[in-house]
Amino acid sequence: MFKINENYLKLPGSYLFSTIGKKVSAFQAAHPEKSIIRLGIGDVTQPLAPAIIEALHSAVEEMGHAETFHGYAPDLGYEFLRNAIAKNDYADRGCDIAADEIFVSDGAKCDSGNIQEIFGLDNKIAVCDPVYPVYVDSNVMAGRTGIYDPSTEMWSDVIYMPCRAENNFAPELPEETPDLIYLCFPNNPTGSTITKEQLQEWVDYANKVGAVIIYDAAYEAYISEENVPHTIFECQGARTCAIELKSFSKNAGFTGTRLGYTVIPKDLKCGDVALHSLWARRHGTKYNGAPYIVQKAGEAVYSETGKAQLRQQVAYYMNNAKTILDGLAEAGYTVSGGVNAPYIWLKTPDKMSSWQFFDYLLENAGVVGTPGSGFGPSGEGYFRLTAFGSYENSVAALERIKKL
Amino acid sequence: MFKINENYLKLPGSYLFSTIGKKVSAFQAAHPEKSIIRLGIGDVTQPLAPAIIEALHSAVEEMGHAETFHGYAPDLGYEFLRNAIAKNDYADRGCDIAADEIFVSDGAKCDSGNIQEIFGLDNKIAVCDPVYPVYVDSNVMAGRTGIYDPSTEMWSDVIYMPCRAENNFAPELPEETPDLIYLCFPNNPTGSTITKEQLQEWVDYANKVGAVIIYDAAYEAYISEENVPHTIFECQGARTCAIELKSFSKNAGFTGTRLGYTVIPKDLKCGDVALHSLWARRHGTKYNGAPYIVQKAGEAVYSETGKAQLRQQVAYYMNNAKTILDGLAEAGYTVSGGVNAPYIWLKTPDKMSSWQFFDYLLENAGVVGTPGSGFGPSGEGYFRLTAFGSYENSVAALERIKKL
Repeated sequence: MFKINENYLKLPGSYLFSTIGKKVSAFQAAHPEKSIIRLGIGDVTQPLAPAIIEALHSAVEEMGHAETFHGYAPDLGYEFLRNAIAKNDYADRGCDIAADEIFVSDGAKCDSGNIQEIFGLDNKIAVCDPVYPVYVDSNVMAGRTGIYDPSTEMWSDVIYMPCRAENNFAPELPEETPDLIYLCFPNNPTGSTITKEQLQEWVDYANKVGAVIIYDAAYEAYISEENVPHTIFECQGARTCAIELKSFSKNAGFTGTRLGYTVIPKDLKCGDVALHSLWARRHGTKYNGAPYIVQKAGEAVYSETGKAQLRQQVAYYMNNAKTILDGLAEAGYTVSGGVNAPYIWLKTPDKMSSWQFFDYLLENAGVVGTPGSGFGPSGEGYFRLTAFGSYENSVAALERIKKL
Repeated sequence: MFKINENYLKLPGSYLFSTIGKKVSAFQAAHPEKSIIRLGIGDVTQPLAPAIIEALHSAVEEMGHAETFHGYAPDLGYEFLRNAIAKNDYADRGCDIAADEIFVSDGAKCDSGNIQEIFGLDNKIAVCDPVYPVYVDSNVMAGRTGIYDPSTEMWSDVIYMPCRAENNFAPELPEETPDLIYLCFPNNPTGSTITKEQLQEWVDYANKVGAVIIYDAAYEAYISEENVPHTIFECQGARTCAIELKSFSKNAGFTGTRLGYTVIPKDLKCGDVALHSLWARRHGTKYNGAPYIVQKAGEAVYSETGKAQLRQQVAYYMNNAKTILDGLAEAGYTVSGGVNAPYIWLKTPDKMSSWQFFDYLLENAGVVGTPGSGFGPSGEGYFRLTAFGSYENSVAALERIKKL
């Protein structure tokens, strides 16, 4: 008789955003007359930029003729895209990453869920708390996290690094030594960042203890301040300890178009074994490449026209972020984030729990956000709003919140 | 210090098609004057059909305007595509599969590699021999296959079901009881099929012993004979024992466009746990949906115009198959397949090994095929040619082979 992967049964409840979706649907069904503004899930709303649309049309046309048709893509991505990434995201920042250290994929969610596969089951992971749920859940499914304690909402074999107002939402080096360290800056969900010097400390620590940093830089395009690193490879020594995950979802609006990449430097080794070769093997065995037309769209992201159009798109969302951040502050909320990231992180008022505030905001203002506790126990008492809505909705949401 | 997944190191050599690619490149570099005809890898060459191109352009246009822009897709696929699949591939064949039992993905290779994750590590797998390498390799990576014996090229904990001329390339029920049974019909690589009655025996067997059949129907569109099942759900009782994998790569030329789906009936359970819910959890946690524009292209596959155009495309490839099959028979080869599948399976002449024949054919005819032994030990002494080239190349390849 076949047996299931019992680790799946350890996962508590459903995925955070499914729960939010169900609550909102139920409220809308009960109050069909109320208009709801969604600033919960981190999904973009602006259309794809004209340069990307043009590239897509042109690639579609190629697929319609035998002479220019494209079948299976190269396992690790087309050269034209890997070269554009290597130049723009690394060489132009003075970082030493070769095109063949870049693995093109269909998005950072897949990569961040799949990357744990190349590591043994006896590695101990460390995560920020609060944190993007995929890092922990994918390790639960693999059986790497021990036992779940519903009272603390923590796993026995996970090292949690609390990020709260007390430490400026920056994780501290853990007391217990981890093997895999997940870091995400600019941070989802808190919207906070760390400086290049702070990140260098992490790189030095990882090299010292023999840990790998899995660095999620999905929100890099939103950095507006100096001295905030755009990639972990700005730090000395990162080539021997870091894997970087990047997404086209937030800088170019690809949430429904799907493209991302992972960088694994060839110097990152366990004994003689390069992690690069393990990830290449996984790609070759279980993946068949991102669609040609989407990789051509990705190339257009790096064209001069594309870059100019996307700077405007990011500026549009960051103007929303400022509207929300300033509005909340005026209304008396304690807020952070929103300067180098499209997320605003607020302290719930009157000692409300995160879910109490979720219900309060939905019922009284018709505004949907994300409860901080959904990202981990240290998110309790916090709440996330995103800048990915339209400007009009961002303004309207704040007017409603100010009236509460 | 972090530890790697040691199972990866057990994998012998590189992925079959990488090895072929390297051999062909080396030959071409040494003989730049020789023209090479590639009938090796199963990649299509005909352009996307006009109905699909039109759907892609139209969906791209939608992505360029805020009112019709699409962000994150529903986890399990858009309703419009799942409904089209449920109607055309199941209801119209009298099979009872609901739209919400269909999980849309970016292709059958990913699904066939990932599906093993929802099962425990203590399941024993059974595979046809020869077989598509992904089924075995993905289980090796998970640690489910025991020790590799280089002399037999077999894993100690895998049940091999030989498919050779002696049994008409149809697997027999294994002596040892498996937990997971991988079946692929029409078969890759042999091009053979089994009848509906034969498949019913497998379904009855799986239900009796409590095994799950993972049924890969990627080549279903090439079935030309009566009484060959188009889906395992034509069989009584399949809803309690079968998972079906389908691809858009071969019926619609999506090898570079990427779309597939997996069917898990809600009746397929281990105790109280529905495999459907485990796969839904995997999709929700580690996947973010196929691109909107590609799902719209998939919908066009099921339009009346799309279906008519794709029937012509399949007929084009099957005419190649007939050309190759008949030509080889005339040249005195022992051949099979090519009637319900785009693959022709031939016995190597003069007791050559599969790789000897590969070199012989490349060096003397400039024709690339795939060594049968690359698909498993029982493939030794066989060789695969595909019908996915152009008609002109298929004819030219056969002329060269006849001259040998």
